[in-house]
Amino acid sequence: MGTLVVTASPPSRAQQIRNFLQRHDLQAWIAWRPDELLMLSGYFPFWGASLLVYFADAEPVLFVPQLEPRDHLPAGLQVQEYPWGDLKCADPYSVLVSAVGNELVRAKVEVEKVGMNPSAARTSLPIQAAEQIPIPEGFAGKLTALAAKPNARRLAAFADLYIRKTPEEILAIRLANRVASVGLQAFFENLQPGLAEAEVGAAVESAIYCEIGHDGIFHSRGWAMVQSGPNSAHAGRFNRSTGRRLEVGDLVLIELATCVNGYWSDLTRTAAVGSPKPAVEPLLSVVRNAQQAAIEGVRPDISAGHIDSLARDKIAAEGLSSFFTHHTGHHVGFRYHDPGFLILPGESAMLEPGMVITIEPGVYVPERGGGARIEDNVLVTEAGHDVLSRIKGSKQEARTTHDQH
Amino acid sequence: MGTLVVTASPPSRAQQIRNFLQRHDLQAWIAWRPDELLMLSGYFPFWGASLLVYFADAEPVLFVPQLEPRDHLPAGLQVQEYPWGDLKCADPYSVLVSAVGNELVRAKVEVEKVGMNPSAARTSLPIQAAEQIPIPEGFAGKLTALAAKPNARRLAAFADLYIRKTPEEILAIRLANRVASVGLQAFFENLQPGLAEAEVGAAVESAIYCEIGHDGIFHSRGWAMVQSGPNSAHAGRFNRSTGRRLEVGDLVLIELATCVNGYWSDLTRTAAVGSPKPAVEPLLSVVRNAQQAAIEGVRPDISAGHIDSLARDKIAAEGLSSFFTHHTGHHVGFRYHDPGFLILPGESAMLEPGMVITIEPGVYVPERGGGARIEDNVLVTEAGHDVLSRIKGSKQEARTTHDQH
Repeated sequence: MGTLVVTASPPSRAQQIRNFLQRHDLQAWIAWRPDELLMLSGYFPFWGASLLVYFADAEPVLFVPQLEPRDHLPAGLQVQEYPWGDLKCADPYSVLVSAVGNELVRAKVEVEKVGMNPSAARTSLPIQAAEQIPIPEGFAGKLTALAAKPNARRLAAFADLYIRKTPEEILAIRLANRVASVGLQAFFENLQPGLAEAEVGAAVESAIYCEIGHDGIFHSRGWAMVQSGPNSAHAGRFNRSTGRRLEVGDLVLIELATCVNGYWSDLTRTAAVGSPKPAVEPLLSVVRNAQQAAIEGVRPDISAGHIDSLARDKIAAEGLSSFFTHHTGHHVGFRYHDPGFLILPGESAMLEPGMVITIEPGVYVPERGGGARIEDNVLVTEAGHDVLSRIKGSKQEARTTHDQH
Repeated sequence: MGTLVVTASPPSRAQQIRNFLQRHDLQAWIAWRPDELLMLSGYFPFWGASLLVYFADAEPVLFVPQLEPRDHLPAGLQVQEYPWGDLKCADPYSVLVSAVGNELVRAKVEVEKVGMNPSAARTSLPIQAAEQIPIPEGFAGKLTALAAKPNARRLAAFADLYIRKTPEEILAIRLANRVASVGLQAFFENLQPGLAEAEVGAAVESAIYCEIGHDGIFHSRGWAMVQSGPNSAHAGRFNRSTGRRLEVGDLVLIELATCVNGYWSDLTRTAAVGSPKPAVEPLLSVVRNAQQAAIEGVRPDISAGHIDSLARDKIAAEGLSSFFTHHTGHHVGFRYHDPGFLILPGESAMLEPGMVITIEPGVYVPERGGGARIEDNVLVTEAGHDVLSRIKGSKQEARTTHDQH
């Protein structure tokens, strides 16, 4: 209203990394986890056997297996190939470690000023997603000789880089959410009595896979887990599809992880087959209200704990506290679950523009034969928030809106 | 012909493990990789955050997260829950490490006689397959205090346990292959001009997912990668589906990984849309002949290198040696790629009954606009071999047989 609002542009990814390296007295970072590569270079690996050396004072160097496809390498990135997949090379990883060592020597960096994360825990899967990434036993150990000992303070600061997304990254996460919405549309279209949970999940994953080739999408994969009727009451503990067939009156919950070109969406929908049974209807409505209240509260300079309480209080008001057994949300985008603070009771960390979080309250009540969760991916903006997972004009959104009001 | 053949029964899994522990002077093995748990206990984890202590002289103990589903736990296995997923527990892994330590103390085992593999490289994904397993940074380090330092000789001997499958395990791998054949049937039915590679792959994965709930199947997931026309010429380097639409005359190759209840099948088929173009037809026929020759050679007491040469010589005879750029096969069953020797030129390791290997020669010729590979999963039997991936009576097999003769 007549006030000039000057908003600082968010720091670019390169600036964020530079600040991190400076603050932690690092001259280089060795990255080999798929989500680290994506964040540091925009490159999402195929095999999961690529490695990037990011220098504070020189251009990064990417090492890729000789079997790696080359058509999605970012333009301008220095790339070296190593003989992974060469029948005649017995130990390609030693070749890689030597090549990395040479680059570090050439750049005159000191071992104590090189950082890396040796663990593959909970990272994104590469495009070839049927196995854990193929870095062998002892690889991290060999690399360790090139870098400082893992240091909790540096690792925590590196993890912190995941939580402030740049405009380009937000676009990519938006695309993952658009693709996920195609999957959710298949979910709503398949909410028919007699279909098995697994059949509904298969239709969702299939719709997501078919997006490859459109809009610059070279990788699109969904993990759709569908739980119906009494099975939905387990959805706070685990998500999986069984052969159970949907029945009229069931609540049906879908947990949907979607990876598009390396960027992730994490969504949940709950809907009824026909009209929900009276015992479970209130579960759906309380979760809708709780989720809406938490989303409406999302804006900069509010604590994660406050957002959690907005959802948790609504559920408590219905006497269902003990059935909301998990956090209200987490960061998302470079992984199905990005590192960083959770949206949790008492969490004092503050929301900032550029963060993308899930808002996903749920209640799961075996005695009533059902459970419900609704999960969206919400961008914190200067003005408040933007729900990335509500796609305007989509049939799925029309259905969701209809369900919710 | 009148000779009495006395065949020793193959050692049970428990015997194999006992022999391994004895030979390597181990009193216990700590397992946390999904395929290790499956092999040691028959339990395939949901979250990938379970841990098993296998004792030489006592019953094994399985630790599972409190969020783990309980309906597929093997009967009779001692199970302890730890508070993974409890909002009020900040560090469930420390609780787990203490509990494991207590069990080791109670069993009076010495640290130097406890083995484990600290790396998660290339292991099977658990049922929740959208992320690398969630064991956190530092977990292996904490466990290490309970076990002897990783020892290359012990690790190699442990890896050796993967390669001799028991009759029960073979049944489970057979089931994975039966499910995979349902996927391949969808592949052959969708070989239609105008369909995109991704659409064909989606149909295959969907068919596999829909097997959940039948025949005791609680987990069934396929990774289907389809390459058509010129894209098939890259299939020796990587496998992925694009948006390219199939054309009459194309070779179309599918690489298909299938996991059923934790057990794996790894198959490839190549077929033409209509009649193959003249430039690529010979690629398909040479690969068929090479694969058939290698399969026919599979029997006990023959070297892996000899099997490789049976395939490689056929390809060399057509002047295509330089286009067969990879191994002829590997062990399969507990993983998409089990550890163990490869079917490779010069490999002297001998085949034994109970081994399950892939036979997968291929040639990839960009100048001709195509590539071909055929891959089956072959059990070594006393009498010779049994191709687990050829399902008698299936439409897919009829089609393959028709194509091949």
